[in-house]
Amino acid sequence: MVGVSDRREFRELVSPDRAREVLDSLDVDPDSERVALEAARGRVLAERVDATVDVPGFDRASMDGYAVRARDTFGADEADPVALSLAGAVHAGEKPTASVGSGAAVEVSTGAVMPPGADAVVKVEETTETDDGVAVRTSVAPGDDVMLAGADVAAGARALGPGTRLTAREIGLLSALGVDEVPVRGKPRVGIVSTGDELVRPGGELDSDAGQIYDVNSYTIAAAVAEAGGDPRVYPHVGDDYDEMERLLVRGAEECDLVLSSGSTSASAVDVVYSVIEERGDLRLHGVAVKPGKPMIVGEVGESAYVGLPGYPVSALTIFRAFVAPVVREAAGLPEPETAVVTGRMAVRERYGEGRRRLMPAGLVADGDGDLLVYPVDKGSGATTSLTEADGIVTVPADTDYLAAGESVDVSLFSPEVRPPRVLCVGEDDPLLSRALDRVDRPRFLPVGTREGLRRLREGVPDVAVVAGPETPDGETVDLGGWTREWGLVVPEGNPASIEGVADLVDRDLRLVNRESGSGLRASFDAAVDALADDRDERGHDLTEAIDGYGLAARAYESPARKVAAGEADAGLGLRATATDLGLGFVALGTQTVDVVAAPDRADKEGVADLGRALDECESIAASLDGFEPR
Amino acid sequence: MVGVSDRREFRELVSPDRAREVLDSLDVDPDSERVALEAARGRVLAERVDATVDVPGFDRASMDGYAVRARDTFGADEADPVALSLAGAVHAGEKPTASVGSGAAVEVSTGAVMPPGADAVVKVEETTETDDGVAVRTSVAPGDDVMLAGADVAAGARALGPGTRLTAREIGLLSALGVDEVPVRGKPRVGIVSTGDELVRPGGELDSDAGQIYDVNSYTIAAAVAEAGGDPRVYPHVGDDYDEMERLLVRGAEECDLVLSSGSTSASAVDVVYSVIEERGDLRLHGVAVKPGKPMIVGEVGESAYVGLPGYPVSALTIFRAFVAPVVREAAGLPEPETAVVTGRMAVRERYGEGRRRLMPAGLVADGDGDLLVYPVDKGSGATTSLTEADGIVTVPADTDYLAAGESVDVSLFSPEVRPPRVLCVGEDDPLLSRALDRVDRPRFLPVGTREGLRRLREGVPDVAVVAGPETPDGETVDLGGWTREWGLVVPEGNPASIEGVADLVDRDLRLVNRESGSGLRASFDAAVDALADDRDERGHDLTEAIDGYGLAARAYESPARKVAAGEADAGLGLRATATDLGLGFVALGTQTVDVVAAPDRADKEGVADLGRALDECESIAASLDGFEPR
Repeated sequence: MVGVSDRREFRELVSPDRAREVLDSLDVDPDSERVALEAARGRVLAERVDATVDVPGFDRASMDGYAVRARDTFGADEADPVALSLAGAVHAGEKPTASVGSGAAVEVSTGAVMPPGADAVVKVEETTETDDGVAVRTSVAPGDDVMLAGADVAAGARALGPGTRLTAREIGLLSALGVDEVPVRGKPRVGIVSTGDELVRPGGELDSDAGQIYDVNSYTIAAAVAEAGGDPRVYPHVGDDYDEMERLLVRGAEECDLVLSSGSTSASAVDVVYSVIEERGDLRLHGVAVKPGKPMIVGEVGESAYVGLPGYPVSALTIFRAFVAPVVREAAGLPEPETAVVTGRMAVRERYGEGRRRLMPAGLVADGDGDLLVYPVDKGSGATTSLTEADGIVTVPADTDYLAAGESVDVSLFSPEVRPPRVLCVGEDDPLLSRALDRVDRPRFLPVGTREGLRRLREGVPDVAVVAGPETPDGETVDLGGWTREWGLVVPEGNPASIEGVADLVDRDLRLVNRESGSGLRASFDAAVDALADDRDERGHDLTEAIDGYGLAARAYESPARKVAAGEADAGLGLRATATDLGLGFVALGTQTVDVVAAPDRADKEGVADLGRALDECESIAASLDGFEPR
Repeated sequence: MVGVSDRREFRELVSPDRAREVLDSLDVDPDSERVALEAARGRVLAERVDATVDVPGFDRASMDGYAVRARDTFGADEADPVALSLAGAVHAGEKPTASVGSGAAVEVSTGAVMPPGADAVVKVEETTETDDGVAVRTSVAPGDDVMLAGADVAAGARALGPGTRLTAREIGLLSALGVDEVPVRGKPRVGIVSTGDELVRPGGELDSDAGQIYDVNSYTIAAAVAEAGGDPRVYPHVGDDYDEMERLLVRGAEECDLVLSSGSTSASAVDVVYSVIEERGDLRLHGVAVKPGKPMIVGEVGESAYVGLPGYPVSALTIFRAFVAPVVREAAGLPEPETAVVTGRMAVRERYGEGRRRLMPAGLVADGDGDLLVYPVDKGSGATTSLTEADGIVTVPADTDYLAAGESVDVSLFSPEVRPPRVLCVGEDDPLLSRALDRVDRPRFLPVGTREGLRRLREGVPDVAVVAGPETPDGETVDLGGWTREWGLVVPEGNPASIEGVADLVDRDLRLVNRESGSGLRASFDAAVDALADDRDERGHDLTEAIDGYGLAARAYESPARKVAAGEADAGLGLRATATDLGLGFVALGTQTVDVVAAPDRADKEGVADLGRALDECESIAASLDGFEPR
């Protein structure tokens, strides 16, 4: 396992700034194209559009009223109206048949062509119909309530410049000019080739025993390409069949302005990329001093640009956004989103010392004063949940040892629409809580268990902690609501092994799936084991050693029950409600409390209040959950 | 012409706030639907998505290296490595065939299934291959570089809540969960019925003599509906055929969640709307105390909501954005864009006293310090150019008499992407200028003519004025560039009337199209007429009276020439370059200077500097324009 970079002479990582320069030098500009006006929203004009017609195309009445010769109305007022004869009428969309001679008027509606001879309109409110014409009670000047031909836009005038992004109002102006097809910049075509024997497209059957996982990068990067104004093309998935991979890279390069690959970081897959680039293109860089994203490859294949993204989804998306999205936006003619950076202060101290620039995923939460707190979200590059638990990226310079708590940092939001959660909630997972969160706008819940939830609440990051089992909040907190839930062992339907309690797990050859330590369910279970040990005058540790699977700690409240349902265990620590939901048996071991508490300085946040209100309705939610009782 | 509101007892206009309440009470919620993950970007989750699988689905090696029993490595270090035998290899996507017994190791690649018996991974960098196995140079703890099954997402865990907007990262998480179809809120279907005999769809032939104009509202409102997250349906255009209009309103109501009509404000068209609403629905309000938009109608037709928008494009779009877009966004599950309000100060005093709330279109420009100035853009409701010359709306309370210059105002941007122009340029229109502006990012040019351009520059609103002809800037300005252009009379090809100069226009029966007073071309022309008058010892006014069409003032530099090309005049005031472009004849009358000058306090703005640089290249631009010379 010799590193490819050793063999390929890419011993030196290039700086992130140099990588940006290399990427900026790539040509991914698409040809411009013509699209129908109806389909032009969001596109960018490729060239200037000048008016070819006058708007309006005729002298136009701006009001309902009477077209007159202004001089005929001089001196008219309420006390001394001028009588004019009526020579006809013109409505919008009609060719005038009458003309306005001296002492005459023609009735006009808004938008009508001014009849010949008239130079002004008297509003209908300033007139009175008479038996033989109309009495005008005001004097008007030439041009009053008339829009002259070309007064809005004159033929030959510059209407919209190249680079203009077409929104409703530009589409309005183009409509007024009669333009039904517009020259726009093409969307850069971006091919996405995802490689790796272990990848299965979402929706397919997964063989976990064979190490298969769902392909996350294809659709994620495709969505990110579209967000940047590109036209993504997801190529059929390739395994680690290198001939097929080469074929797809070459096809992608022929069909697209830019080809991205991600997934396989194996040395031989990289060899394929190298050989394609060497035979048909130009390798521009391999390896960037940035975390994550060190193994990035940039080059050209044929007429197309090529970027090899890291395989882990968070790394791939982070590198795409930092390095590739600006190139796609530039080619699409879209500006960098200016509103996408916010400033906050670090909620905690974050150590770092790897000597390369770090693109640190970060979450946001408003404190009690509405100021933004920033906390690192780093669950390892392989974790896809970092994708949704973070709100943006903090760029940490390479020479940083640590970010101090309270230090001011800039966060590049994942998109301008990203906003901090209205309530940040951590702790024990629970089905009633989940249903309550459904009734709150923009919550974020991190299922870290009761103990870690309490620790984080003390640390001052989240607004709310969810506490289940024997542990209780220390320090001052504000109660938002609570309930009890019946817990015990979820067993197969009908309880075929006739399990009656903890003693069966200790004494018999039964396989358990436990919850992780730190969860409230686990704490209640451990208390039950300790009680049995006391009864038997044994050490708790000896009993747990005797339970097969005591160390098999699942992370979510339903997981042990699902293992039981899948036939992988005889019993799973869990809730009666879960057993009922999944049609499984249940051996009750007790009832535990669940309390939802807020940090006192966050209790007035709107999102916290919303959660409190949602929990006030927990009685109705509890009714649908077996073994749950409002407290 | 009795006002409909008199007959229909809607004498009282309702307040804008009441109108919002009525609109909020309309039910335009669409059914939810299921879409493929690939098509889910930008959609909003209709219900919570919980994980149904563990991610990863197996204990997974996080690094390339060797799977071991951690206890076998205790005490190992660089000086004293531990020798392990090699029992096989597992790569990503493979089912392990070997297991790890005491004293053994199995080679693993990143993403591989951990082989049975192993509880940790030693990174390849910490090992050395040996003849009969591997030497491990570090000690590891159980779990090191292993991601346990479900550690990322556990089966049963809450993944995404209802109301979540799906961007690249949510699509990533859903991919990881194997979800290939998601329940999303439907996009509210919004039918658009545009009425008016005078309307022609863009791209169609226009009969201006019959008062036809292009239909601006259909595509504009459709684009605005799409921007608000709705699904617009533009119905075939109806004239003022009332049976057809009724049929379309009813069909739209059957097919859509909301029907919008706009265009015809004629009393009889409103009658049709009334009769449809009365027979099949409920009239909720007619008439709102807001400018523009007074004639708004809100009601229900069958199961659908109905809003009648004003006919003028700017009014229609303004009312749509202020009253209807929030309803569409709410139904689509999209939040109000929070970033779409900016604060600036009024650049000029703006009088107002109509006693109803005003939604005033406003343009933005940064002053020399980067502070935002706000200026009213009010060219009359019929002007479509207000659409693109404004950046947003200032809401002026009904009891306001005036907004003072310098007063702080909030501007609701037309969309969060709207940004002020980088350079605001006013004055004489000119083909060289237009080409130079093409090379500048985000300029705005208002073709108000030389005299008005200089007035506005003195007033302190624009950055730059373009000055042509005899007038010169007063006060201090910064020169950005300039050129000369040959001007004269554009005549039909071959000059069939043998026009030689101004005297022919005065003395012969020839029809002229002039430019508006205030333009530099007109000023040079008037100077030529005055010179002739001096020669003849006559008054200039008598000569201009003798010129047929002297008062026919076109607004753009090409317009008179286009009238000549259309056979509507014998001569048009214009440029040699235009005559050449349009293949017409030209009678030279002189050469005039064009100067581009900046306000001194704006000269350092980036956009102004960009324009200056673009003008430095005017030599090359001038080469393509007949009669132009760089100065």
